[in-house]
Amino acid sequence: MNVSRTARVPVRKLGRGASVSSLLDALAIEEPLEIRAAWKDDRGVESDRAIAVTMRTPGNDGELAAGFLVSEGILTAREQVSGIDEGGNVVRVDLAPGVRVDLGAIERHVYVSSSCGVCGKSSIDSVRTRGAFAPAVAPTIVDPRVVHEMPEVLRRAQSVFEETGGLHAAGLFDASGHLVAAREDVGRHNAVDKLVGASLLRGALPLYNHVLVLSGRTSFELVQKAAMAGIDVVVSVGAPSSLAVELAREGGMTLLGFVRDGRFNVYTGGERIVGITDG
Amino acid sequence: MNVSRTARVPVRKLGRGASVSSLLDALAIEEPLEIRAAWKDDRGVESDRAIAVTMRTPGNDGELAAGFLVSEGILTAREQVSGIDEGGNVVRVDLAPGVRVDLGAIERHVYVSSSCGVCGKSSIDSVRTRGAFAPAVAPTIVDPRVVHEMPEVLRRAQSVFEETGGLHAAGLFDASGHLVAAREDVGRHNAVDKLVGASLLRGALPLYNHVLVLSGRTSFELVQKAAMAGIDVVVSVGAPSSLAVELAREGGMTLLGFVRDGRFNVYTGGERIVGITDG
Repeated sequence: MNVSRTARVPVRKLGRGASVSSLLDALAIEEPLEIRAAWKDDRGVESDRAIAVTMRTPGNDGELAAGFLVSEGILTAREQVSGIDEGGNVVRVDLAPGVRVDLGAIERHVYVSSSCGVCGKSSIDSVRTRGAFAPAVAPTIVDPRVVHEMPEVLRRAQSVFEETGGLHAAGLFDASGHLVAAREDVGRHNAVDKLVGASLLRGALPLYNHVLVLSGRTSFELVQKAAMAGIDVVVSVGAPSSLAVELAREGGMTLLGFVRDGRFNVYTGGERIVGITDG
Repeated sequence: MNVSRTARVPVRKLGRGASVSSLLDALAIEEPLEIRAAWKDDRGVESDRAIAVTMRTPGNDGELAAGFLVSEGILTAREQVSGIDEGGNVVRVDLAPGVRVDLGAIERHVYVSSSCGVCGKSSIDSVRTRGAFAPAVAPTIVDPRVVHEMPEVLRRAQSVFEETGGLHAAGLFDASGHLVAAREDVGRHNAVDKLVGASLLRGALPLYNHVLVLSGRTSFELVQKAAMAGIDVVVSVGAPSSLAVELAREGGMTLLGFVRDGRFNVYTGGERIVGITDG
């Protein structure tokens, strides 16, 4: 579905010397999306429930919903989705027979994560036990020269940000630096959910030997989403938080930050970067 | 309570020519905070309930909890708080007798706002009806020269950002450009909640004739929080979203963006800016 991700609004621009000009300015669209899931339980009882509402930039709503359900530990494979119904600001994912939904766990999780996507104080433990995928067997190895180039490749793929300055981008790369997909959203978590959902829907989970590249800062939640999709290398242009580093370390992931101007920081998992001999 | 807002972690820095150096780097701390509220209902039945868990930077947790309850429409005045109990990653706000809590509304609201703080599709209507304060009688008038200076004043007050690059800042200014308070957090919404909570606790709500200054972009949620605190001018260094502009317009608020390099954009409410003759 082709939707507009920007809106033009009238704006006054105040310049130096108090000059005022009027023109149309492009803004990133932000709208609520209700994510629903429909399924049958073992006794054939049908459910159709709102799982969450997120403020998102329209477009790729089905991917967003699917990726959200991966992050929540409900989906791991394309076969688990029997259909997706998108319309306006509601999207419903129809789960295939046999997919189990612990609605209590989802509601508790969503309920307590008013802005974070984390299950409270035992969150690091819970995400490790909830992760559906075993660690990759073949190690992901990334050349630093490839790392340096990734943010620029992502920026070139970002159509909307340049125009509005209002969108976060997430890019999925293979280990040799090829951009597999890029998604944008007013919410960083949504951009990652869209990427993960797109990967699920083309049958590509787990995302072993891939790299998630983020246009901004790295929070705990974003590392958690990467982990749930089987990604073990996360690269960002900005700073990570303390808990993002902690989760990456405990999960055996590689976390790079401040990738800019031919430099970057290795917070965890240096063994996956060519030229760094230990973690 | 004096808490550390940064953590030092070992990091490898890869520079040009594949040079590698090891050092300690400062990161913004991100930790979950459980926000609880305790109250008695009309029949004397005591409740003590978790309202939300948010990923935040430790410090000013009581303010954060109080501000969150303002945003949720529960608190409007200092007298409604009989005590705040902070400890570790849990904070409990004890509500004074007579404060009414619609737990269903909170849970529904928090539940559906997994990353946004909005009540779904009718959100703009709901925040307008829920707003506790009447519009300001005396108009807020701001000189553009004051607007130009605000971001720099906020940056100078930001102790942690310079060090970690990982924190958002929110500043409360009076209309003449005096900085009243500044707060920082890994979450933009938390920085604003801390400011609003601090204002509540010093008996300063509603924040008529004040300006909220944001270090980043402006989402719907941030405009909503400003509105709930009685603030009618929101200024940011970055871009607003489409829904932020829509809410500001419907609420009769002033929204400025891209305040940098001696210029800024007026999205709504130009009548509060000296030199602009209409809205």
